[in-house]
Amino acid sequence: MRADIVIRGCLVVTMNEVADVIKQGVIAIKDGSIIYIGKAAEAPAFEADNFIEGDKKIAMPGLINCHTHAAMSLFRGIAEDRELDAWLREVIWPLEAKLKPEDVYYGSLLSCIEMIKNGVTCFSDMYFHEDMVAKAAEETGIRCVLSPGIIDVGNRVLGKMLLREAIKFAERYHGKAGGKVFVMLGPHAVYSCSLELLKEIGEKASSLNVGVHMHLAESEGEAMKIKEKYGKSEVELLGEVGLLRNNLLAAHCIHLSSTDIDLMAKHNVKVVYNPVSNMKLSSGIPRIKDLLDAGVTVCLGTDGPASNNILDMFDTMKIAALLQKAKYRDPRVLPAKKVVEMATMDGAKALNLNSMIGSLEVGKRADIILIDADKPHLTPLHDVYAALVYSARGSDVSTVIIDGKIVMEDRRIVNVNEDEVIEKAERVSYDLLTRKNPLRDFIWKLVERRLKK
Amino acid sequence: MRADIVIRGCLVVTMNEVADVIKQGVIAIKDGSIIYIGKAAEAPAFEADNFIEGDKKIAMPGLINCHTHAAMSLFRGIAEDRELDAWLREVIWPLEAKLKPEDVYYGSLLSCIEMIKNGVTCFSDMYFHEDMVAKAAEETGIRCVLSPGIIDVGNRVLGKMLLREAIKFAERYHGKAGGKVFVMLGPHAVYSCSLELLKEIGEKASSLNVGVHMHLAESEGEAMKIKEKYGKSEVELLGEVGLLRNNLLAAHCIHLSSTDIDLMAKHNVKVVYNPVSNMKLSSGIPRIKDLLDAGVTVCLGTDGPASNNILDMFDTMKIAALLQKAKYRDPRVLPAKKVVEMATMDGAKALNLNSMIGSLEVGKRADIILIDADKPHLTPLHDVYAALVYSARGSDVSTVIIDGKIVMEDRRIVNVNEDEVIEKAERVSYDLLTRKNPLRDFIWKLVERRLKK
Repeated sequence: MRADIVIRGCLVVTMNEVADVIKQGVIAIKDGSIIYIGKAAEAPAFEADNFIEGDKKIAMPGLINCHTHAAMSLFRGIAEDRELDAWLREVIWPLEAKLKPEDVYYGSLLSCIEMIKNGVTCFSDMYFHEDMVAKAAEETGIRCVLSPGIIDVGNRVLGKMLLREAIKFAERYHGKAGGKVFVMLGPHAVYSCSLELLKEIGEKASSLNVGVHMHLAESEGEAMKIKEKYGKSEVELLGEVGLLRNNLLAAHCIHLSSTDIDLMAKHNVKVVYNPVSNMKLSSGIPRIKDLLDAGVTVCLGTDGPASNNILDMFDTMKIAALLQKAKYRDPRVLPAKKVVEMATMDGAKALNLNSMIGSLEVGKRADIILIDADKPHLTPLHDVYAALVYSARGSDVSTVIIDGKIVMEDRRIVNVNEDEVIEKAERVSYDLLTRKNPLRDFIWKLVERRLKK
Repeated sequence: MRADIVIRGCLVVTMNEVADVIKQGVIAIKDGSIIYIGKAAEAPAFEADNFIEGDKKIAMPGLINCHTHAAMSLFRGIAEDRELDAWLREVIWPLEAKLKPEDVYYGSLLSCIEMIKNGVTCFSDMYFHEDMVAKAAEETGIRCVLSPGIIDVGNRVLGKMLLREAIKFAERYHGKAGGKVFVMLGPHAVYSCSLELLKEIGEKASSLNVGVHMHLAESEGEAMKIKEKYGKSEVELLGEVGLLRNNLLAAHCIHLSSTDIDLMAKHNVKVVYNPVSNMKLSSGIPRIKDLLDAGVTVCLGTDGPASNNILDMFDTMKIAALLQKAKYRDPRVLPAKKVVEMATMDGAKALNLNSMIGSLEVGKRADIILIDADKPHLTPLHDVYAALVYSARGSDVSTVIIDGKIVMEDRRIVNVNEDEVIEKAERVSYDLLTRKNPLRDFIWKLVERRLKK
């Protein structure tokens, strides 16, 4: 049987519906898809250009990072251990006002490399200049779902302009790059968008047949202000404007009532749990167990590198499990296998890509990572899910295949020059700190004033 | 000027009293000690056998892991996502009853390698067969403080026997191996030791001039039982038996009243915070901010590899900071610099080794790690403490020097064969699962019955 790549001899964690784990497994890839998966002893003879020996390695679906702001790698470590409000208003927003497309490109390129090196094969981004993120993703070979940020904060013209741009972006990029770039519309949050704008975004998303990606119930203060202003919760308001639906990807979802949770379950809303960012910014601890019990699909995100400060989904998986156990005072909550599911198959469902990726099954696109388990901290390997969640880290990933193409081999990035990107991103980041932009500063002061009301 | 090793060109995080950070720094080592530290531009000319180029590297004091059970690496992944009580009684204790000295040796050897690879240069251990842990530590070159476990659970003979063995061990090992092995006495916990035994341990520790290392207020259930039985808290009972003093190293300290905290501060008790294990076993969240505010020295521990499941102090530093921010709902709690202090200088204080290690200063022993910062997740490097706590991970450590000797170079372990240890520890662990030992099983059933009362 003819294949492009054959991986053989590894422990295969399929994450298929019955969660098969195959010892001494074989995976064959052709034209970007998985054409065979099974035990070595039962496999047909393969001819292939490339045989990858998987001895002492674990093969699993690539990890899916469902919420980040990739370009914010430029802000890594700039403002640490501060309150969310001060962090945003005093540091992040003024810097973002000075961002040029080129900055977003280099910040995103750095993050794409970091994600690949940590076993992330697909990420979902929300930011400005998403065309630059698309460019960085395409060059590195990573799959992505991009959401151009939309905000109006009382300025209808601004909102309309950003929505128009986002629509253009969706028309141009959705499903493109050989099925590796997808688009969602990205209203920033309920508190930063008017109800009219949210409604319009919902309608446009329907006609474009794309999802909607937004922050929801992250800040307790903002959630309370919304409740005071409208007499309704953020979730109830989303219901009113028609955004509560199965293609809504809602990041954070910390400050929810039980009614909110029921509403989200009923409408099959997808939740992104970002445990590191939630802890670092002290936003509160989401009720993930309750959301899961209600039947909501919950996936995982790192959030942006300025509030994490890395894009390592292994780190996120571990902390995701630990935080829920601490919250519910029950070590049985969020067992390791469920966490791996959230980082793979549930992530694919949340991005509406589950027919394409999320598990290792014949017919799916080959987004596969190999983990080198021949290490002290992964010995002994009694429980592979526990090893992946509690012991493994991004640096254990040795090889990454996306859409059937090797994009990292023995930790070497294939498509771009890693050293050059590190150097360039560093320079851009330092330049940003000293750069002046009086006009944008003025506009952002206006925006800020509106937000304070 | 003559030196054995000179590290040059790196960013030096000294963790000295004024927390100097030196750009383009030079560190010179002779006869195991630091003989020079300063800027390259101001350094004298050195002759040395070994120059280490520190370009794009961070040099810092080796990390100090103040609470672990190294040999429990053999149990990694054996019983996951279970309640503490079931975890201990159904899985861990029955397996421990079958442990032979040789098992402890291989489990500890694996953990010593893991710790060195993660930048730990000194660890504090509590377990059985500590002579085997000493052997493993000496062979790998790591510094350690070993506490033979003591327990009586109502059986005075058992307690007396274990104390006698511990005293012999202290006499033989304390301050030995060229000042790299130290000893503490290790009463397991208030609930598993009689007050008579605890008192005797305190007296013996005084006459031997060694510290006492124990679990304190880890389990809420046990803390409540103690309160019911004695009408006093665990901390108050320790005061009565004379154990509340500056050389008590108390692990966990989760279920404390404000009176307990005041008592601990007054007596200068040292606390080990083990955030990962506390979360994984759902033991509760310690009030570290309150302990620090009261003036208590708090250091960090990974706890055993069966409840973490790794010995990566970078992972522990990150989660230590995140958990306190989440608990107090304030992102300013436990800033990155304080966390690095807890993992270095405060650890040295807690182990009463602060005149010897914990910071990079002339005259101290050379326990130094180099971190390779030329990586996407450590770019840009705006804030070195934030980078160490929130971004770095054990695998970023490139070189480890302990007592002036290189024990890891470019991630290669120098003194033992890593591959052989991995293989051997794996075999021992699998063997343990099927091994029979009816006599010990019987004795442990008796112990268990006593504990249930």
